[in-house]
Amino acid sequence: MERSIEKVNLAEALSRFDEHWRPKIVGELNDFFVKVVKLKGEFIWHQHENEDELFLVVSGRLLIKLRDRDLWLEPGEFVIIPRGVEHMPVAEDEVHIVLIEPKSTVNTGAMASERTVPAEWL
Amino acid sequence: MERSIEKVNLAEALSRFDEHWRPKIVGELNDFFVKVVKLKGEFIWHQHENEDELFLVVSGRLLIKLRDRDLWLEPGEFVIIPRGVEHMPVAEDEVHIVLIEPKSTVNTGAMASERTVPAEWL
Repeated sequence: MERSIEKVNLAEALSRFDEHWRPKIVGELNDFFVKVVKLKGEFIWHQHENEDELFLVVSGRLLIKLRDRDLWLEPGEFVIIPRGVEHMPVAEDEVHIVLIEPKSTVNTGAMASERTVPAEWL
Repeated sequence: MERSIEKVNLAEALSRFDEHWRPKIVGELNDFFVKVVKLKGEFIWHQHENEDELFLVVSGRLLIKLRDRDLWLEPGEFVIIPRGVEHMPVAEDEVHIVLIEPKSTVNTGAMASERTVPAEWL
């Protein structure tokens, strides 16, 4: 599908929905999607077998738990979790982030659960 | 090469160099690089044959000229320029951005010139 060239304002995109843990696609480039998502509370431990995953914080303070340490991200900070690395995002208060990851990425990785949702265009 | 999992603060990364139009790699995920770059002045008209390119503005105001219109980006806004689409970034005042693009991307696309530079890790 041909999409027109339109800019995306991250804050405006994030203002258009309220649900937590439901990534919304806001762009695609080659085999990658750009998503925005609101987080609140704990997610589940999971890993992606083949996909590296970039988390960029737009607002709030995000904890990404790794098996050997805690990683805290503030607005304007990102981290890339390599494929195969178990992680659990935790948002004590609401956090708004950008996810950049291969189109094949499932939100819960190899851990299908009631938290698994398909990504959909905003 | 195995890289350790370290977060990147975009403002801090951008404070570590001064040159314009010399993208610095600050992360890799699958076949993509994340780069930061400072822009000032006009670049050249070019297109990428196979790579879509994401421009996210961190600070300043970026003009991306397309053949049929001008696109202005403010901080917190991004646009994806699809492969094959001619574009010319213009920064009247200094602009700091994040670029996300396939590892194969050359900064000047199909237009090799004296503005062509290899991307290097920060």
